[in-house]
Parts: sequence; structure tokens; C-alpha cells
Amino acid sequence: MTYRAPVRDLAFSLEAVAGVDRVAATGAFPDYDRDVMGAVLEAAGQVAETLLAPLNRIGDQKGATYANGAVTAAPGFADAYREFAAGGWTGLAASPAHGGQGLPKALELAAFEPVHSANMAFGLCPMLSLAAIEALEAHGTDRQKETYLTKLVSGEWTGAMCLTEPQAGSDLGALTSQAVPNGDGSYSLTGQKIYITWGDHDATDNIVHMVLARLPDAPPGPKGISLFLAPKVLVNSDGSLGARNAFRPVGVEHKLGIHASPTCVMAYEGATAELVGRPNEGLAHMFTMMNAARVAVGVEGVAIAERAFQQALAYALDRRQGRSPWTGEPGAPIFDHPDVRRMLSVMKARIEAGRGICLSTGVAADLAKHAGDADDRRFWKGREDLLTPIAKAWSTDMGVEVASMGVQVHGGMGFIEETGAAQHYRDARIAPIYEGTNGIQAMDLVGRKLSQDGGDSAKAIIADMTATLADLHHLYQGKPVERFANAIEAVRDATLWLLDRKQDPARADDVLAAADAYLKLMGDVIGGWMLAKGALAAADRLKAGDGDPAWLQGKIDLYEVYAANVLGHASSRLAAVGQGGGLLMRMTAQALGAAA
Amino acid sequence: MTYRAPVRDLAFSLEAVAGVDRVAATGAFPDYDRDVMGAVLEAAGQVAETLLAPLNRIGDQKGATYANGAVTAAPGFADAYREFAAGGWTGLAASPAHGGQGLPKALELAAFEPVHSANMAFGLCPMLSLAAIEALEAHGTDRQKETYLTKLVSGEWTGAMCLTEPQAGSDLGALTSQAVPNGDGSYSLTGQKIYITWGDHDATDNIVHMVLARLPDAPPGPKGISLFLAPKVLVNSDGSLGARNAFRPVGVEHKLGIHASPTCVMAYEGATAELVGRPNEGLAHMFTMMNAARVAVGVEGVAIAERAFQQALAYALDRRQGRSPWTGEPGAPIFDHPDVRRMLSVMKARIEAGRGICLSTGVAADLAKHAGDADDRRFWKGREDLLTPIAKAWSTDMGVEVASMGVQVHGGMGFIEETGAAQHYRDARIAPIYEGTNGIQAMDLVGRKLSQDGGDSAKAIIADMTATLADLHHLYQGKPVERFANAIEAVRDATLWLLDRKQDPARADDVLAAADAYLKLMGDVIGGWMLAKGALAAADRLKAGDGDPAWLQGKIDLYEVYAANVLGHASSRLAAVGQGGGLLMRMTAQALGAAA
Repeated sequence: MTYRAPVRDLAFSLEAVAGVDRVAATGAFPDYDRDVMGAVLEAAGQVAETLLAPLNRIGDQKGATYANGAVTAAPGFADAYREFAAGGWTGLAASPAHGGQGLPKALELAAFEPVHSANMAFGLCPMLSLAAIEALEAHGTDRQKETYLTKLVSGEWTGAMCLTEPQAGSDLGALTSQAVPNGDGSYSLTGQKIYITWGDHDATDNIVHMVLARLPDAPPGPKGISLFLAPKVLVNSDGSLGARNAFRPVGVEHKLGIHASPTCVMAYEGATAELVGRPNEGLAHMFTMMNAARVAVGVEGVAIAERAFQQALAYALDRRQGRSPWTGEPGAPIFDHPDVRRMLSVMKARIEAGRGICLSTGVAADLAKHAGDADDRRFWKGREDLLTPIAKAWSTDMGVEVASMGVQVHGGMGFIEETGAAQHYRDARIAPIYEGTNGIQAMDLVGRKLSQDGGDSAKAIIADMTATLADLHHLYQGKPVERFANAIEAVRDATLWLLDRKQDPARADDVLAAADAYLKLMGDVIGGWMLAKGALAAADRLKAGDGDPAWLQGKIDLYEVYAANVLGHASSRLAAVGQGGGLLMRMTAQALGAAA
Repeated sequence: MTYRAPVRDLAFSLEAVAGVDRVAATGAFPDYDRDVMGAVLEAAGQVAETLLAPLNRIGDQKGATYANGAVTAAPGFADAYREFAAGGWTGLAASPAHGGQGLPKALELAAFEPVHSANMAFGLCPMLSLAAIEALEAHGTDRQKETYLTKLVSGEWTGAMCLTEPQAGSDLGALTSQAVPNGDGSYSLTGQKIYITWGDHDATDNIVHMVLARLPDAPPGPKGISLFLAPKVLVNSDGSLGARNAFRPVGVEHKLGIHASPTCVMAYEGATAELVGRPNEGLAHMFTMMNAARVAVGVEGVAIAERAFQQALAYALDRRQGRSPWTGEPGAPIFDHPDVRRMLSVMKARIEAGRGICLSTGVAADLAKHAGDADDRRFWKGREDLLTPIAKAWSTDMGVEVASMGVQVHGGMGFIEETGAAQHYRDARIAPIYEGTNGIQAMDLVGRKLSQDGGDSAKAIIADMTATLADLHHLYQGKPVERFANAIEAVRDATLWLLDRKQDPARADDVLAAADAYLKLMGDVIGGWMLAKGALAAADRLKAGDGDPAWLQGKIDLYEVYAANVLGHASSRLAAVGQGGGLLMRMTAQALGAAA
């Protein structure tokens, strides 16, 4: 089925929900205005619909292939990547000093949603480059920027993030790859990395590997990790390509989904590398890029959900079965059956919630860098930090659940691979895992983000939601308002409970036992806030006669759907927040009935 | 990883939760006692572990194959089926008059859980035979029983249910297959059927197709459907096999999961068939077997969840990452991280809830047939009817969600096919779809089951839960009790609201809009009841020194895990019950933002 980029929804979410106007108002983006936003989203939609969506299925079927120490991209992907790069899509938010277009991060995130919707396996390639771009912009030397960054921004080369080792996944402090100084300023890099997305391919002449490894004298654990850059092909001082570097893929994984995204096992065998940033601060440097990548993964969750939603909606409008209670029509489209309509409406509501959260995180990231005064920047940095794990985890869980609902709407056809709904269900499943599992995100939220500023960022978002709640009284009466009020109250209770528990290190397990439920609570309620803001903006536009009335009224009703179907979870999440670590500690393997 | 049948948990659930003793007390099962139960479960576990589990992965990889009008089972499956049948597993609950073992349905359901856990694709083959057995026991003539039923009970032949046509899925009334009388009592059957599970294979000499079709003079719609039997190979009057019948598979589907279960497109081209039961009552006859099949599919949901749980638990005990807040140990098993322990504990709690619901449905089915007096039989029939859609839908949704959590516990390894966790996630996804989608189950619950006796069955289950609540005060204090009390209250409110709405045919859409949420509410709360009954029984056994104390204490704690993580959803489900059809009706394609 044909994918159509939801350009109108994306623009609405950026403007009316995430408030991208504030970013424009900083003056830091002279080339950005509303028209540019519209044009960029339109063009991204075009590329997604015409270049990338047609390759999604063949990518799934054929996948990337490995043979003789090299990876070949899935059929059509290498050409498509080069066309994508030539269109300037790899440097949207990069600095013009390095050839980028200097647009807001929030717009880049929005523009990439259709890319991931159209072809999630493809989208990972530029997404990883973006992470490398961020790392080099922040920590690279002038020479590194000149040599590598410009090529990444132009898309001539791609980037790869090389963190995980077999024994070091969520716990990167356990990694053992070594980098030994060669005496000439370069390093000799040795070790094995796994799960390296697009770590090798034939779409570009070179690939820039950003690799975590240890210097010979490094302290053990996370404080002894440094960040290195190792290009697949060495670069001569004049910028021309030289000899092949001493690393290679030794295989690609056979995965549940995203078959066209090669997931490489990489062997570095005395590869020539250079240090990026300061020795032993590699983990911190990598986290600058990982945090950006985390929001991008959140957008992937939204994107795959949107794709699944569109496909399910098209099927529901086409497939006829039974009699509708609304039309009385026998052989009605299944869309006219309330339970099918419910599924589609809840899917759409959750997608808009996730989109709002991710783009709000992008706006916060832009303002954290570019707001006018230091207090403002600190405020927005706090909000970016708080929202990042929520954007990543909530949106990707949502992506899986919505893709599963998409299968369900199709009935038996959903289980047949040719239909395509199953591919979304398979592809979506990676997003809660990579770039830090959603459990890691939850621990990051309760362990660091919540309390790093004494809870100020969390309290600020509660205050902002409460302000929206006051406005909501003008639009709805009764339950839709009460449900948001109760949900905000649950967030407040949970937040205060956690901040209190965090005072006592002996109760660390209570906090960790609460992590998942707290993240889900925050996501559910902040998601509701996003829809509430959208509904209020839609009501204003409707009054002003500005836009398609059916679509705007839909935004108003969609909040109600969300309030009835999702916001009620808040009290249940609150119960789980308070379950306590002691209860879980008692659930030993024996208690769980493990075979003796 | 090695599958171990949870024999101890199954016996506990049958006895302490589902109350299988009542079935024994009817006297209808003279060959059944506690020892027999234990022996049957042990033996089923053995077969599952040693015969079926080893074939699960190759079945996924190679699948059943189609060529030249015939299906070949996946490697090893045909031999395994014949060994399975020789073991007597296809006739556990069938009447001894036809060669069966005359054991309770509830025990058969319990014994089949390990079969489905070990190899869900395999388990479908005998499961479909069981459905055909039920239909022939209820509606077959003596000759049909002699000719076909005995062969199905012995497992010498298998059965297939042939309902769906391309235009007739959830709406079977739309089917068009024709059966024309031949004048000699037989019929000539013509039409195409899709989604025919194990519709063809090479494991047995014959396959008995139970086919819905229309007689030439049949009224249109669901009241013009009759049930026919068509064997793959015609049977001579002496019982020997004759000529090949005029039907054949024309292909098998390429599916997301259960690759070793051939899903056939079948073409009937003037096939010789016989009528089963009365003309034009085929749908009702088929529903006798579909209701039994629905509980069996619920057990599949439990089974795949148990398999995913075991695999995730084994991984979590083995994989080491980071420091545990409980042990302080660096490089601790990830099982010692609270968020991982939470996932596994919630998985286990939900599995036990689903197991309790399914086996209670089985007990109700046994008592509906065999209870001593007519009032009792009516009572238990009402309970069976009420629980059936819940057992099917709640357990299979749970199966998908628990399989997804199983992937998540594995982190990156979960997305790699070789690990096996992904296969469970793929296999599990069919169960909410077939034997009536879960949306159809929800509509059956609110449309028929809830009100067919004026709500008596629902009110009776509320009363029973309230009685357990009273006992719960002796075991827990505070929240675990409050949560169950609130949850029962939500069930009561929702039930009364629905019964009231159902008085007014103009509000049919409100009832349908509530269906999914009501089913989930019932499932969540009845599931909690199951765990509460288990906890009370475990406390008694603990006091009596009867059984492994760690495991029994685990049952008591597991209820608390469920109360904190699942029972809280009740209030949220109640909100969704009341959302109203009008809201959903307003969510038109335009409102949902469909491209113009």
C-alpha cells in the first residue's frame, strides 16, 4: 500500500504542539521560517514516498548480504542512499561552516519521520551519520572536522557508532577494545564490536567509525574509555583516499526485522585510529551523540507506528465484512465497525502523542543551545534531558504496540507476510532495544534526569501541564478534563515519592523497581498534554477558519479518545511506581518456579 | 534453550485455582483421579520436552512446503506426529466409546499447554483434530462416528476446519461454497477456502475436512450454511481407503510465524462430501467446535508466554552486566537488576492468570456437561460461555505481550533470530487473530454472553470474586486487598452500565465501543482472582507443610506483583468502557487525517 507522508500533521505538531516558533525567535536560525519548514517537510515527504518507500519490501526480502569480508547493501539501497545524500538530507541541522543547512534540530527530526516510515532500515544509515556528525561537531579538532565532518555532512561518507562488545552491552564500562599509541599521534586499534549498524556497506567510498576503546594506561571501568575515529579507508593529507584500514566486518546478524540494515560484527586488527576529544572521556563524548540518537530512535517509533496506522486504515476502508451499527449497511467497510474504529483512533492518538513528545524534545534541544539567556538555556537543557529517555522509550514501546494493532486490524491478512503489516511489527521491535534499552532509559530517568536539578525540570513540566489543564476547561466539560487533572496528580505524587525515596541510598531498589512505571506514567500523561495542546490550537484555528475543519475537529476529538483510552492508565502506573524493590527481590528463581 | 514443562504449576492451577476436584466429584470420569492427573501431565511434559521442543527451530526455519498440489510437513514433523498419536494424545478427552480415554476436558487443556509451548506449529495439528472430534461427537451419525471419529480419536487421521473464504472471514454469513446433492445421499462440494490450518500434509493417510457450505436451496446469510465432511481420501464401506477426493491445496501462505503449520488455500472441485448434522444449521454446529477451539487457542497464548518466560529467565540468570543494588555484585546476572526482575515477575504473574482462566473455562465446560443436576449444569454452562471469549482473547493478547517482554529481557540478543526469542514473538502473533479475532471475542462477550441470561453469569462471577476478597483479608493487608476490591467494583460498574445500555438498541454502538475494554477489564480482574485463589491455597499448603516452601511463598508474592502491576488497570478499562460510540463515530477518515 502507498505511504503518504503526513506533512500536515508534522507541521501542526511542530508548530502547535512543540512550539517551534520559540526556536525561530532565538534568531539562531536565520535561514529558517515557516515557509522553509513547509518546504522541507514537503520535500522530505516526496523523497520518502517516491525514493524510499518502494524499496522497503525488497529490502526486507533480500536484506543486506555479507560475503568475503564485505557487506553489500540490499538491492537499490546504495543508489538510493547516494540520491538521498545528493538531495542534502544528511546535513539539514549541521552547521553551514561544515556544509550543513543550519536548520533547527526539531525540523530535522520531523523531516526524518517520513524517511523512517518509508523505510526504517534505510533511515538508520543517515541516522547513524547524524550521531557521528554531532560527536565531531562537539569534540573534533579542526583537522578532523575538515577531513571527516564535511564528508559526513555532505553524505559522501557515512558514520557508524561502535560501542557494544559481546561482554559489554548495557554496561559499556566492561568493554576491552584497546588503542595503543603509534608514537605519531595515531593509535592502533584492536578489538571486536557487535551490533554495528551499517558498519559496512557498498553505498559510499568510506565509512567513519566512531569507536570506544581503552588506552593502555586507562583506569578500569567507565572512566577508562576513550573515543576514537577509524575510517574504513585511510585518508591522505590531501584528502584523497589511501589504503584500506585494518578492520573489517566478519559477519552480519540474521535478525527479526530491519533486514536491509546490516548489523555487523566488526573486527579491528591494529586499525589506524585517531583520538576524538579527551582521553578517558570517551563515554561522556559518546553520550552527547547517544542522546541525540535516542530522540531519533523515538522518532523511529513514531514513524513505524504511522506507517502501520496508514496501512491499517487503508485496509479498514477497503475490506468489507458484516453490518455497521452506524450505517446499517451490510457488507460495510470494517472501518465502520466501532471496535475497528477504536483501534485506529487509539493508534492515531498515540502516534500524535509520541510525535509531540519527540518534537518537543527536539525544540528543547534547540533552545538548550540557542535560547537568549543562560537561565533559559539551562531550563531547556533540563527539559531536553528529562524528555529524552521518555521520547525514546515511550515512543518505541508505542511503535511496537501500534504495529501490533496494525496487524490486528488486518485480521488473517495481517499474519501473511505479503500484506506488509507483519514487516512493521518485526521492524518496530528493535527500537525499544537499541540506543539503550527502554529499561536503561527508565533507569536514566529516575536515576539521573529526575533528580539532577533537585526535581526542578519535572516540577516545571507539571506546572506547564497544569496551565494547559486550566485552558482545557474552555474546550471540554467533565471527564476529559477530570482525567487530565487526575493524571497530572498521579505524576505529581509519583515524582514526589521518587524524589523522597532517592534521599535514602538504602532504598535504591525501590527507585529502580519504579523506573519503568514512572517512565510510562510520564509518557502517558505528557502525551496527553501534547494532544491537549493540539486540541486547543485546533479550536483556535477552527474559530479563525484557518484549515480543514474536519481535520481540526479531529484533533479536538482525538484528545478525548486519548483521555478515555490512555490517560486512565495513570493511576495504575502510580500503583506500580510504589510496588517497592523488596517485593521484586523476593521473586527469586525458585519463587518463579524455575526448574530445580 | 531447553524447555521444561511446568508440571508442578499446571497441577497447582488445575487443582488449587480451577478446582478440578469438582469435576472428579461428578463421577463422570471414573478413570480420573489425582494420580492420573499427575501422570498425564508428567507424560505430556516428557513428550513436549523430548519429542516436540527439539523440532521447534527447524520447523521455523524450513517450514511446511508446497509443491505440485501437495504439502510436505517440515522436517521431522510427520514422524513426530505419528509418534504423538501412537502415545494416545489425540484422544485424551474423547469418549471411550470411540477409543478415547474419557478424561476431563480441563486435564486435556492442561496437558496440551506443554505441547504448544514446545512447538506451537505442531500443536495446531492435533488441536484442529480435537475440534473435529467435538463436532462429530455432537452431530455425527453412528456411521460417521464409526468411519471417521474413531480414526480422529486414534490420531490415525487428522481433522481440518474449513470456514473462511476470501470474502467471508469474521462474517461467515457471506460464504459461497456450494454443496449439491448427488442423489445418493452424498454431496458434490465446490468452492475455495483460505487459512486452512494443516489442511494438507503428509503425516497421515487421510485428512477429514469439516467444511461449511451452502445447499442449493439455502436461504442467504448465516441461516443458509450447512456443515459437511469431506475426507481427503474417500473411505470404502469396509473402512479401507479408496480414491483421492476432488479437492487439493493450491498453495500455502508465507506467514510471520508458525512456519511449520501449513496454512492452506484449498480448492474443492466437486469433492464428495457428506452432511453433518442438520441442513442450514452448520454455523451452530461449527460453533460447538469453535468454542472448544477458542479455549484451546487461549491455552496457546499461555503456552507461548510460558516458553518465552522460561527462555528469558534462563538468559537473565546467565547474562551478566552491571552492579546489582541487592547484592552489590559487579557483573551481576541481569536477573538481579530490579527492572529485569520486574519484567520476569510480571510475565510469570500474567501467565498464571491466563492459565487459571483457561483451565477454569475447561472445568466449567466439564461441569456444564457432567454436573449432577440441571441447575448446576446451567450455571456452569453460563460460566463456560462467559469465560470462553475472555480465555481466548485475554490469554492470546497476553501471549503476544509476554513474548515481546521476553525479547526485551534479551536486549540485542532478542532481535537475533538464532536466539529463539524472536520466534516466540512471531508465533504468538497469530493467536489473537484466528478462531475469531479478539475483537470478535469482545463483541461475543458484550453482545451475547453477558446478557444471554440477563447478566446472571457475570453477577455470579462477581459474587464469587467478592467471596475470595473476603478471604484475602487473612493473607494481606492494605493495598493488595484494596486493589482487588476496587477492581471488582470496576467490573460491577461496567457490567451494570453495559446491561443498562443493552436495553436500548439505539445505543448498540456504545456497547460495541465498550467491548474491547470490557473484555480486558474482565480478564485483568478474573486473572487477579485466579492468583488470589492460588495465593490462598499456597498459604494453606505452606501451613500444612505440603510442598516446596519457596515456590509456595512465590505464589503468595506473585499475587502482590499482579495487584501492583495489573489490577490497577481496572479503573482505566472502566473509563474506556464508557467512551461511547458517538465519539468513535466522529473519528472519520478525514478526522484521522487520511490523505484527501
